Amino acid sequence: MPELRRDPITKNWSIIATERAKRPESSLVKHLISGDEIKHDPACFFCEGNEHATPPEVLAYRDENASPDLPGWNLRVVPNKFAALNFDEDFLVNQDNPLKITGYARGAAEVLIESPHHTRNLALQSADHVACVLMAYRNRYLNLSQERSIKYISIFRNNGQQAGASLVHPHSQIMATPVVPINITNEMYGANDYYESTGRCVYCDIIKTELKDRSRIICENENFIAFAPYASRTPFETWVMPKFHSSRYQDLNDFQIHELSEIWKSTLYKIYTGLENPPYNYFIHTSPTQKNVNKYYHWHMELVPKLTIAAGFELGTGMYINIAIPEDCADYLRSIEVK
Amino acid sequence: MPELRRDPITKNWSIIATERAKRPESSLVKHLISGDEIKHDPACFFCEGNEHATPPEVLAYRDENASPDLPGWNLRVVPNKFAALNFDEDFLVNQDNPLKITGYARGAAEVLIESPHHTRNLALQSADHVACVLMAYRNRYLNLSQERSIKYISIFRNNGQQAGASLVHPHSQIMATPVVPINITNEMYGANDYYESTGRCVYCDIIKTELKDRSRIICENENFIAFAPYASRTPFETWVMPKFHSSRYQDLNDFQIHELSEIWKSTLYKIYTGLENPPYNYFIHTSPTQKNVNKYYHWHMELVPKLTIAAGFELGTGMYINIAIPEDCADYLRSIEVK
Repeated sequence: MPELRRDPITKNWSIIATERAKRPESSLVKHLISGDEIKHDPACFFCEGNEHATPPEVLAYRDENASPDLPGWNLRVVPNKFAALNFDEDFLVNQDNPLKITGYARGAAEVLIESPHHTRNLALQSADHVACVLMAYRNRYLNLSQERSIKYISIFRNNGQQAGASLVHPHSQIMATPVVPINITNEMYGANDYYESTGRCVYCDIIKTELKDRSRIICENENFIAFAPYASRTPFETWVMPKFHSSRYQDLNDFQIHELSEIWKSTLYKIYTGLENPPYNYFIHTSPTQKNVNKYYHWHMELVPKLTIAAGFELGTGMYINIAIPEDCADYLRSIEVK
Repeated sequence: MPELRRDPITKNWSIIATERAKRPESSLVKHLISGDEIKHDPACFFCEGNEHATPPEVLAYRDENASPDLPGWNLRVVPNKFAALNFDEDFLVNQDNPLKITGYARGAAEVLIESPHHTRNLALQSADHVACVLMAYRNRYLNLSQERSIKYISIFRNNGQQAGASLVHPHSQIMATPVVPINITNEMYGANDYYESTGRCVYCDIIKTELKDRSRIICENENFIAFAPYASRTPFETWVMPKFHSSRYQDLNDFQIHELSEIWKSTLYKIYTGLENPPYNYFIHTSPTQKNVNKYYHWHMELVPKLTIAAGFELGTGMYINIAIPEDCADYLRSIEVK
């Protein structure tokens, strides 16, 4: 039976319609595992020995005695060579014509090279290594938010070519913009709306519901939970949230990052193994840089597999047709053992 | 110089950043023209002679003496065999838990088979044939909007596999939903906002600006205009609008459809020829079924080529990075002669 479900924050509807999965060309699981691992590719800009091929690093975790921009690192963050934003000019919005509002794209675009290994997927790194990546995210948040013109810092990862990854070497990306993106504005608006009418954080309430219901939980530990959202837009969409209320990712302490890394590593591993390394995007949603902590917004991570193509319906309406039942997806991912 | 531009209706920002087009893997023009045309494929569900392979037609333009669901047609509309919505049950929203709002996905999903020709792209059909397609869109709007539970009718077309077309035979799709999609709500909200503060339709004002500026116009005739929107989300994004104010597509008369077909055929032809049949989605944005005509909303068509992949940044923020300047795109499409 096709079902409509509404996201309580964005108020967006998804159509859960498994009938469409029966179309002859549908195949949820794609075989994208590329075979043998390649530790080092001398032609790769992100591999060790090619540090000169990227702009100078802005952050690195490296051996104590190693010098910047030379081999001997575990993780590097460098400015994107083909940046869509830069700090060359001020952000001054020209509002002379309300139909042609424009401004200089002031900001930062950075690449986080997750490890020196040329092909090893983040899902196959140790939880400790995942913690390093999460730590580096926090570092860049804190650093870039010092710059007064920056209003939002977006951290995301594209896994696989079909999800927009243009280079094989595993990496995340960081983009700092002088405006707050519309998806964040909408989420904060929806969350504030719920808070105004109930006095509670909508995300905290969702977590309570999920912990009681349990059918959509994928994994959890004391302070973090991974689950399939009720109105999932795509098969195997997964959200990870702190169980405690917190509006800003960058407020995580080291112990919390360690706990988060366990859940995040498990989530990535289950997706990687259970769906045979599908293309996906993940991103962190957190408060804008100049917002103080508040009672209604709750940072979280969203992972959206790209097993189907968002086409004219999705693009035109903003609604999604999801060909899998979220409870079934959670059940399947829960069953994948993490090694 | 990277530039931010804001859509005056949705208030969404695009980053216009040509720097990214210099990435080694970027290539705006893809070669997807499949070579020889195939007029008829006996294995295709949508080809003549296989009418029994689809559910019975709900509309057809056919020879006077030909019978329904048999050969002898120019255009057919049939229910989608793998429908995400149906009329089996009533749409009753269960709101017991505000975090789990759900309802039966009541509605219609239909396929419009644009011609009996197995591969001929809509861009290569005559303007008269394009007018038949536009006429059929109107017919389905009028027909489906009779059903009281239907709140919105979405008409769209996916061109090419990368844009989500799962069958080769050229077709459009019609989906009638019991809820108004979020993109329509947002546009109507933005347009009403502008109307409240100026007393004018924002789309009418955009058309005035474009006609004065001329740098983003692709083609026009007396009553219709095709142009690259100022805050284009993707290279070669194109909007088509009536120059006269009208909030509902279905109010077009036959003469207006004839005029629209000239502009729409030209637009499709320029995109097809100039970009070598790129993957794209197009869709019609019009008023919800139960809205009367109004002074602030203005129906239009949006065509969004898929020459780049929307990845973690776009999905996470809702903002788009566009690697081409809208004025350059319009200039290029303007230069393509329509044969």
